[in-house]
Amino acid sequence: VSVTYPRGFRAAGTAAGLKESGRPDLGVLVVDETAAAAGAFTTNAFPAAPVSLTKAHLSTGRARAVVVNSGQANAGTGDAGLDDANEIVEAAAAALGCNADDVLVCSTGVIGPRIAVGRVRSGLDAAAASLSEDGGAAFAEAILTTDLRPKLATAESDGFRVGGCAKGAGMIAPRLVPHGLATLLTFVTTDAAATPELLRRIVSERVVPVWNGVTVDGCQSTNDTVLVLASGAAEGPADEADLADAIEAVCRDLARQLTAEAEGATKTIVVQVDGAADDEAARRIGVAVAGSDLVKTAVFGGDPNPGRILQAAGDAGVAVHPRRFHASLGGAPVIQGGVVLEPPAAAKQALEGP
Amino acid sequence: VSVTYPRGFRAAGTAAGLKESGRPDLGVLVVDETAAAAGAFTTNAFPAAPVSLTKAHLSTGRARAVVVNSGQANAGTGDAGLDDANEIVEAAAAALGCNADDVLVCSTGVIGPRIAVGRVRSGLDAAAASLSEDGGAAFAEAILTTDLRPKLATAESDGFRVGGCAKGAGMIAPRLVPHGLATLLTFVTTDAAATPELLRRIVSERVVPVWNGVTVDGCQSTNDTVLVLASGAAEGPADEADLADAIEAVCRDLARQLTAEAEGATKTIVVQVDGAADDEAARRIGVAVAGSDLVKTAVFGGDPNPGRILQAAGDAGVAVHPRRFHASLGGAPVIQGGVVLEPPAAAKQALEGP
Repeated sequence: VSVTYPRGFRAAGTAAGLKESGRPDLGVLVVDETAAAAGAFTTNAFPAAPVSLTKAHLSTGRARAVVVNSGQANAGTGDAGLDDANEIVEAAAAALGCNADDVLVCSTGVIGPRIAVGRVRSGLDAAAASLSEDGGAAFAEAILTTDLRPKLATAESDGFRVGGCAKGAGMIAPRLVPHGLATLLTFVTTDAAATPELLRRIVSERVVPVWNGVTVDGCQSTNDTVLVLASGAAEGPADEADLADAIEAVCRDLARQLTAEAEGATKTIVVQVDGAADDEAARRIGVAVAGSDLVKTAVFGGDPNPGRILQAAGDAGVAVHPRRFHASLGGAPVIQGGVVLEPPAAAKQALEGP
Repeated sequence: VSVTYPRGFRAAGTAAGLKESGRPDLGVLVVDETAAAAGAFTTNAFPAAPVSLTKAHLSTGRARAVVVNSGQANAGTGDAGLDDANEIVEAAAAALGCNADDVLVCSTGVIGPRIAVGRVRSGLDAAAASLSEDGGAAFAEAILTTDLRPKLATAESDGFRVGGCAKGAGMIAPRLVPHGLATLLTFVTTDAAATPELLRRIVSERVVPVWNGVTVDGCQSTNDTVLVLASGAAEGPADEADLADAIEAVCRDLARQLTAEAEGATKTIVVQVDGAADDEAARRIGVAVAGSDLVKTAVFGGDPNPGRILQAAGDAGVAVHPRRFHASLGGAPVIQGGVVLEPPAAAKQALEGP
């Protein structure tokens, strides 16, 4: 399951003592041969130390290992935090027998506190000793913070497999740019053979649009990171379109799991936008409606209030022609040509579900 | 008090039957001689019918009357809503004996339902008969929706007076542009003599920045309107800077009242931003921090969580240099050079107040 479903990957998770609860808090993912790698990162003006370091290490388009700790975000920690991230990377390289440049690092947890690097060092030794082809579940467990459970997804196509896991429950409203995502963490692996350029294109065109369409609380974290690694351990070449489809499908699966289990969430709002000028306009309108506090309270209260949908869509920063704007709830029309209708019973019923 | 504190204005408020509660819901403000007038309006893509009509009528820079109803927003009502707004304006012109072009109209309330124009017509006759120089309080009462009480403010300077009232408790996060604001309604009057051009400059440079720095729930209404009217009934000329200062002071006073009494509010967050590149950058950072759900929950819970301030400031869409970013809570430093500090006791105490 998870990131070890594709061939060529091993993983582990361990409790290094970074969380007061004593729960697992250190995950390690390694690839047997150097993997092609691409990523996307938070656009917050205060990126966490591991974000800066991982962006730099990704410039080669290659990676051997990913180290992830939960408990502390290593954000808002200044130069000392950058030193800590570097020390963790070097300790991982030593424990795993690879170059430090080939290690990617992610952190998630409280912003501000330093990471206990000594504990990470011991934890890395323990994790290195327990790496296995069945370690994906332990890895996915170790990266959690306030999540209720791990988010896991897999897909396969002609000759190759894709696996992934994600964490994230609060401070979620990513506006990622490729090579630059947080505290959404998403890891996708595949055993397809892929160049770094192909992975970057898939991240840009297929992965980022999925995650940037997600909002929990409107707050983009300092740590958001999405990484995609391709081991090439599958036999034969993968069709590029099939690979892109499979990676997007895994991300969509993870995104649905993440929103369903977000901090305090009782319902999930899915907004389908048709006929927008372009995908970005559609994304903005969707996120504006799903992220509106007034729409959320209306949905929570089971009261279809189409005026709030109108307000939110009109406030998305996108040019909208009122006469051409229509909306429906659960298939029942509630706004027609910019005119708010009396919501039919079906609209109210649509709000009763999860 | 309120909009009738300056000389040359009369006002009234009445219950026209638009609110199910039977509370006052129709306010009329008239100026004895034609007033210079300027305004600012919502930038929501679905402006309410009265917003469109008032913008058109303001093009002359002159006005004789303002008609405001609460109960229905006349937004999301399409062409029929525009017809209703026009009918109200014409009925007001007839009842008050002025040109329809000189009547400005505002609505606030539920989005979607049509206004009962027949009731407005009867209400206008009653209001016209009760107009008085002491009517400002009744006017301010009639424009309320979920507000706990009217927001009133006055100022005076050498030879002139300024008065104002506002309403707004929810769906408040204006991003007004001059000549184009919502369901914030603000009315400012002065008996200073002023040209429409001067009023427009004051609206643009002094009034809009105050209101665009306010957020309750992050949702910009379809109806936000700010109007400033100058009767010229004071003796002698007013100093332009003094007039601008007095109008800004009245708006600040109203804005503090509005945020303190916002829907469900138990605390007010005031963010002071120093050293930003420009006023707009400062405004964006301030609104991003004050409007963050994670900062709001931290403040509500009395837990100074500087990491959330860092996250929000970094997510304002403004270039920020982490090393030059400092923050304090109640005077106690909590972020220094981008590094989150252990919050001192004073920071926690600062969250205990209102």
